[in-house]
Amino acid sequence: MTQNKIYSLGEIASALGLELIGDDLCKINSIGSLNSATSGQISFLSNPLYMDQLARTQASAVILENKFSSSCDTNALISENPYLSFAQATALFKPALNCASGIHKSAVVNQSAVIHESVSIGPNVVVEANVSIAPRSVIGPNCYLGEGVVVGENCYLQSNVSLYHRVKLGDSVVVHSGSVVGADGFGFASDGHEQVKIHQLGSVSIGNHVEIGACTTIDRGTIEDTWIGEGVKIDNQVQIGHNCRIGDHSVICGCTGIAGSVTIGKYCVLGGASGVVGHISITDKVQVSAMSLVSESISESGVYSSGTWHMKTSDWKRSNVRFKQLDLIHKRVRKLEKKHTT
Amino acid sequence: MTQNKIYSLGEIASALGLELIGDDLCKINSIGSLNSATSGQISFLSNPLYMDQLARTQASAVILENKFSSSCDTNALISENPYLSFAQATALFKPALNCASGIHKSAVVNQSAVIHESVSIGPNVVVEANVSIAPRSVIGPNCYLGEGVVVGENCYLQSNVSLYHRVKLGDSVVVHSGSVVGADGFGFASDGHEQVKIHQLGSVSIGNHVEIGACTTIDRGTIEDTWIGEGVKIDNQVQIGHNCRIGDHSVICGCTGIAGSVTIGKYCVLGGASGVVGHISITDKVQVSAMSLVSESISESGVYSSGTWHMKTSDWKRSNVRFKQLDLIHKRVRKLEKKHTT
Amino acid sequence: MTQNKIYSLGEIASALGLELIGDDLCKINSIGSLNSATSGQISFLSNPLYMDQLARTQASAVILENKFSSSCDTNALISENPYLSFAQATALFKPALNCASGIHKSAVVNQSAVIHESVSIGPNVVVEANVSIAPRSVIGPNCYLGEGVVVGENCYLQSNVSLYHRVKLGDSVVVHSGSVVGADGFGFASDGHEQVKIHQLGSVSIGNHVEIGACTTIDRGTIEDTWIGEGVKIDNQVQIGHNCRIGDHSVICGCTGIAGSVTIGKYCVLGGASGVVGHISITDKVQVSAMSLVSESISESGVYSSGTWHMKTSDWKRSNVRFKQLDLIHKRVRKLEKKHTT
Repeated sequence: MTQNKIYSLGEIASALGLELIGDDLCKINSIGSLNSATSGQISFLSNPLYMDQLARTQASAVILENKFSSSCDTNALISENPYLSFAQATALFKPALNCASGIHKSAVVNQSAVIHESVSIGPNVVVEANVSIAPRSVIGPNCYLGEGVVVGENCYLQSNVSLYHRVKLGDSVVVHSGSVVGADGFGFASDGHEQVKIHQLGSVSIGNHVEIGACTTIDRGTIEDTWIGEGVKIDNQVQIGHNCRIGDHSVICGCTGIAGSVTIGKYCVLGGASGVVGHISITDKVQVSAMSLVSESISESGVYSSGTWHMKTSDWKRSNVRFKQLDLIHKRVRKLEKKHTT
Repeated sequence: MTQNKIYSLGEIASALGLELIGDDLCKINSIGSLNSATSGQISFLSNPLYMDQLARTQASAVILENKFSSSCDTNALISENPYLSFAQATALFKPALNCASGIHKSAVVNQSAVIHESVSIGPNVVVEANVSIAPRSVIGPNCYLGEGVVVGENCYLQSNVSLYHRVKLGDSVVVHSGSVVGADGFGFASDGHEQVKIHQLGSVSIGNHVEIGACTTIDRGTIEDTWIGEGVKIDNQVQIGHNCRIGDHSVICGCTGIAGSVTIGKYCVLGGASGVVGHISITDKVQVSAMSLVSESISESGVYSSGTWHMKTSDWKRSNVRFKQLDLIHKRVRKLEKKHTT
Repeated sequence: MTQNKIYSLGEIASALGLELIGDDLCKINSIGSLNSATSGQISFLSNPLYMDQLARTQASAVILENKFSSSCDTNALISENPYLSFAQATALFKPALNCASGIHKSAVVNQSAVIHESVSIGPNVVVEANVSIAPRSVIGPNCYLGEGVVVGENCYLQSNVSLYHRVKLGDSVVVHSGSVVGADGFGFASDGHEQVKIHQLGSVSIGNHVEIGACTTIDRGTIEDTWIGEGVKIDNQVQIGHNCRIGDHSVICGCTGIAGSVTIGKYCVLGGASGVVGHISITDKVQVSAMSLVSESISESGVYSSGTWHMKTSDWKRSNVRFKQLDLIHKRVRKLEKKHTT
């Protein structure tokens, strides 16, 4: 990790493809929020609710829409989508962590593995037979790559990642620490007394530009591969069961659990701690709100929820007593209605 | 991992104890679903809903019940329980992964550990004092076995598993990557200002034939051991609190959380992302549906649920407004009824 | 791990600052529950419900309130808060695990790291550049400490912990196995087609006396640090999103998920598997019950819940049918009321 990077504002405008109003030689060393930014920092305005913060900001430059530029007393970068431009700016300031190419001497790498010379393999990594790793990928410390694993170009595995045998990562895949890809799907057949294991003979196929959070698990398929589409973003502590298929560019927030053999469309968003029961399909562009359970297939795009809102526990208990009686209460209403119509 | 295994159909029939109708010399190299299987693959029919797939399958052989054999145009293996026979067949085709017996030279093993010569200890494994490991067990790369850990025969620990001091595994226990057995139970006593730690002096005892998924945690007991019965199957991302006792052959699906001091009977099934509050008991043969919370002891076998079904969020909000008023609505119904009876 | 420790009862009374009624030379070798304790064990009575167990206990001594001492036939230690005294007693009997100071020869430690000579660094630990570790801290086997990590005094990291670059731990912080602190917050900006990563430039700051369970994840902030206050206790499998701020002495039970940019007050208790949606605030001394979702800010201390109680699934389905119709049912009640008032 080197010292903070420093750019001129002109360099940043050029890197992000934005029009600059102000001093192109102004030095920028980091990013700050409108509220907290100090001199030398660049900030952004993506929500008009924060206009008052714009007026008071100490930032040396602000990324904003043209229509707000007259309200900006400091240097401005004009963007049609300031939030997206901010995202692009973060890439300029991310720390350059040490990941020298080559294989650390403490790593245990099988001779049959095919590893490009530009790849970085960290300390204590274990690479089994017939693994292949494409150019510029980084395998962090203490990772395990099972037999026949395939890692594409420009992948980044943080420390302590486990990839079971034959798991395939596309290009530019990021996997955070503690995650496990390719463990056995949870499949058993009862013999009436014990659960007999169904060995999981498929694997997991991860598309290009997928990001997988920390302590997330994606199970291998029973016969065919569990499949994660291109550009899918998966947060921490997510569980994806065997045989699932997740469509391109879908987003799965933290703590979500998806049971086995689920098919999810493209551009879906599963909110935090949501769940999906097994063997169902969800079409494209479905959003599921936090801690909601999808218990049947969804064939119409839209926003879906389950559960109840939080209440003071004393009030909630009263509602719950009545929830238990709800069918009975309904019968009583119907009876009253009948009396009125007769 | 060697090449795919190849069997004659006669060998498979014999291994599974099934009657063969057709060519016992037919070569089988893998398993496929009825829909996707190609020549050289064996498939199975366990659900009559898929009869149409049977008619079209390209599989070289199908495991099915006798009553469906006349509808099978290819070789048939006759089974009273095709799903169970399929499970048994998967064992024939599971890959033989490299786990040579002996201790990898990079492993750090305390001299006092008692490790059978048939045991395989992978790279970078750390084994503390007084550990014992019985014949034919495999300890995957980067595992940690704390002081006094006992591992039975034929166990398989995948990579990056942590067993804290004095954890005991029975025979034929499987633990998937990233799982932690024996971390401190979550116990504190408030002194009115701070939380004072209750050190967890018990351990964890895991029965024979237990399987534990990836990134699952089972805490050590406060005074006595947390206890997992024989044949219990635990999926990924499950949390089992301190002092719990899980009865034989129960099944705990992914993302389930069980608080401390819970006793669960035999042959229970906890659905995915379900929860159990602390200090309660659940009798034998209870099933809990996905994302349901068990908030009181259950003394009667059966199927239990909590929560609400998913709805379009706009409709769900309207129901939620009324859920908050539910006790009031009930009072209004009662008032109407009184008017009618007076 | 040495043999069980043995104390005289007088030594224990002195260590806990309690009055002793009985034999101060009585030898105590461990702690037991009233029910299971045998000779040589000390037990405690914190709940009058267990008075009958007190009468029958085989423990050699019992910690209890003065008012119950006359019912105690064995040696007694008099405490105003027996549960707290029990917690303090557990510290006397916790095993002394091997963690010799010094750096294990298999550890990979960057030359620029500043590590006090009293620190213990276990096998296969990886320590990157510019890390600093203060006196008497223990870094367990297979841990990873990224560039610029700061670890305070008397910290204890169990095996397989990952701390990303620049994470800061205060003094006396415990982190259990498999946990990941400082992974990237889940931040993306859509360009209308793909999700563009917002690199997470902040870090994580953990206060003194924090305990973090196993397989828990705490994400780094986008611009500023995610912040965990003093004395916060976090259980297993918890997810804390980027930019969160958790107030001093709050307790977060297992499987809880907290989305990004949440502020939680002091002395809060989040029950097991509870959830908090993003960008909200919760005031001090709020309790949230198990598997409840906090979906709006809470400005009043108290106890909050969401969801419904478990029921037999057949009954629950009937209630759920009516939950879907709840707004309609309400309309029908209103209509009936109108008929009555007109």
